[in-house]
Amino acid sequence: MIRISQRGVQMPASPIRKLVPYAEAAKQRGITVYHLNIGQPDIETPPAIMQAVKDMDMPILEYSHSAGNESYRKKLVQYYKRVGVAVTHEQVMITTGGSEAILFAFFACLDAGDEVIIPEPFYANYNGFACEAGVTVVPIPSTIETGFALPAIEDFERVITDRTRAILICNPNNPTGYVYSREEIEALGVICKKHQLYLFSDEAYREFRYTEDDYISALQLSGVDDNVVLLDTISKRYSACGARIGALVTKNKEVYAAALKFGQARLSPPGLAQIMGEAAVDLPPDYFAATKEEYESRRNLLVQRLNAMEGVFCPNPGGAFYAIAKLPIDDCDRFCQWLLESFEYKKQTVMLAPATGFYATPGLGKNEVRFAYVLNREAIAAAMDCLEQALKVYPGQTA
Amino acid sequence: MIRISQRGVQMPASPIRKLVPYAEAAKQRGITVYHLNIGQPDIETPPAIMQAVKDMDMPILEYSHSAGNESYRKKLVQYYKRVGVAVTHEQVMITTGGSEAILFAFFACLDAGDEVIIPEPFYANYNGFACEAGVTVVPIPSTIETGFALPAIEDFERVITDRTRAILICNPNNPTGYVYSREEIEALGVICKKHQLYLFSDEAYREFRYTEDDYISALQLSGVDDNVVLLDTISKRYSACGARIGALVTKNKEVYAAALKFGQARLSPPGLAQIMGEAAVDLPPDYFAATKEEYESRRNLLVQRLNAMEGVFCPNPGGAFYAIAKLPIDDCDRFCQWLLESFEYKKQTVMLAPATGFYATPGLGKNEVRFAYVLNREAIAAAMDCLEQALKVYPGQTA
Ligand SMILES: Cc1ncc(COP(=O)(O)O)c(C=O)c1O
Ligand SMILES: Cc1ncc(COP(=O)(O)O)c(C=O)c1O
Repeated sequence: MIRISQRGVQMPASPIRKLVPYAEAAKQRGITVYHLNIGQPDIETPPAIMQAVKDMDMPILEYSHSAGNESYRKKLVQYYKRVGVAVTHEQVMITTGGSEAILFAFFACLDAGDEVIIPEPFYANYNGFACEAGVTVVPIPSTIETGFALPAIEDFERVITDRTRAILICNPNNPTGYVYSREEIEALGVICKKHQLYLFSDEAYREFRYTEDDYISALQLSGVDDNVVLLDTISKRYSACGARIGALVTKNKEVYAAALKFGQARLSPPGLAQIMGEAAVDLPPDYFAATKEEYESRRNLLVQRLNAMEGVFCPNPGGAFYAIAKLPIDDCDRFCQWLLESFEYKKQTVMLAPATGFYATPGLGKNEVRFAYVLNREAIAAAMDCLEQALKVYPGQTA
Repeated sequence: MIRISQRGVQMPASPIRKLVPYAEAAKQRGITVYHLNIGQPDIETPPAIMQAVKDMDMPILEYSHSAGNESYRKKLVQYYKRVGVAVTHEQVMITTGGSEAILFAFFACLDAGDEVIIPEPFYANYNGFACEAGVTVVPIPSTIETGFALPAIEDFERVITDRTRAILICNPNNPTGYVYSREEIEALGVICKKHQLYLFSDEAYREFRYTEDDYISALQLSGVDDNVVLLDTISKRYSACGARIGALVTKNKEVYAAALKFGQARLSPPGLAQIMGEAAVDLPPDYFAATKEEYESRRNLLVQRLNAMEGVFCPNPGGAFYAIAKLPIDDCDRFCQWLLESFEYKKQTVMLAPATGFYATPGLGKNEVRFAYVLNREAIAAAMDCLEQALKVYPGQTA
């Protein structure tokens, strides 16, 4: 028999998807399932950026520059300037989603066997890209008690080895919603400089912050121009997940040149979607206001409802559109499956993401679940009604 | 100093791109440069498929299924049926260009250190994907004297080791234009079965064949369902290179499942372009006729002009839109640069791809160049006039 690769065997399956068949079966039974499990926003894609694609007038849809259209990269320089980040278009490389930016950063900066430190819980697909690049993820736990603040710098120092090449953070964070403070980011800058590590900063959720606290992009740090690689995407920012447009931004010329070689091998990022991305930079300045307000009001509702439930604790996340809560349950994987398989309340149930999928350390997150507040408040309220009832009857209660 | 990865150092730069600065400089001097160097077709993207995108009506551009929209995969089943390949939509995975299909095939079937045999000259970016996957390319030469026919099966057997996992062919071939015969493909099937190797078949140029010779897709072989992985793309077929839509097609369930995990990590292929791909399957049956006729007449002109030049030999390629010719020159890299840097004829010159970039064995292809006939006949004729003059005055002549 012909065998697939070990890499193919080891490649993690998406932890969120394993519940999908149970959700399908529930729907077949006529049950309404509230999907709070994935980060697919329900916000309308701005019609103006859809229109930009419809207005295109190109006889041939050609390969673009491997780093993306120069006109788009120049536009993005304006966008970054607006958010306080000074870069040139030669420091911006357009990628096929933020996903590809992560992969190219791994490829360009780490070799097989090298280590990247990531505070856990973290975006589960980092594991997949690490597997592709042969890179070892070294997790260090952040905890729900601190609202998932950055682990102490000593925790990072303790796990640094001679194979450590990078620290990866996501800010605002998926799955925790935590927004790192200026002090935390600065502390990361110091440690990266001291140990000559890359600082990969995934800022997919940059605009979605609901606090007045001081926020800085890793690219605003000084003295670490060669260390910082920004991983970005338009997926969440403009509710354009299907576009597949992201960016890798770095002032490190060698990293940029290496990333471009990976980019050249795959020829170019998507062409139609670059038109969208470029148009997005011209959206009116108040575009984010309404979206942020909507997300914030959902978060407020979600967190308030959760904390009002017996034995439930949910820190108030400062950003993104995720929250992790601790529930009085034995095992989140079992609970989330049970919600779909064995529970219903007024012909409804809720689909959540077991937090175990976001931890790399076995055993962590067993009584935590992640909520993506990508449904409107009415749906969130109904989902919370379900959860409240479910916690009363779930056989694996611990409260 | 912070260092990039060894992988980043070793990753090959695109061989075709290194001449770009010289072409730019020539244009600056007011010289018309005929670009016969890259496979970017000048054929119009079918307006109907552009229109399909313009007609879209989706409030949210969401992630698609990681394997691509089911509706598109079902359409592709019809397309494959039409070309004589029987597959189900669960054997088709939509990728971000053929490029990603190649990478996923490497990831799913080969581990770092494993070997893939590829007849050379070959599409240069295979080297890049091999570098990304840590895979070793083992070239076996095909020669211009045979028109780049498949090397003898003994040549394959001679290089098979216990690390060999796959044979990769491109049919019709880029860069040679050669179309493998039924016998050649069947022979590959036999050897792959015998040694339990994957047969990766890149059929990007399937439609562009100008002979009546019997052609089969690797997926039409029998008895090797578990071995064959088809690598496909709409880039050339519909002159839609910028769309970034391809496909990995295999009847091997394990390979498909592994490829899907790589697909899940990057979430989904481009959404807008999937609409194009789906619409393309509904183009009228005569769509390819005009395009093929155009390419064929260009090939005829090109090959005839080349062979009429003193000391030049160009086999008549049966497919794709490339041809490799042997020129009476010392060094194709030097010659192609000289064409841009030091030569002009009536304020015109021609940009070609040195064939050395398509060989993995050092020293091979030194007096060969590749032509991509992606310009109209008038331009090709003018380019041939340039080349003819150039060969008379080039200082490194060998004839
Ligand atoms: C933290 C984070 N980074 C990166 C991505 C990748 O997104 P995309 O490839 O759509 O840009 C996601 C998507 O959910 C994410 O949550
Ligand atoms: C032989 C071959 N395979 C694959 C590709 C990749 O094309 P794409 O990623 O645009 O589908 C090309 C592009 O030139 C090619 O020539």
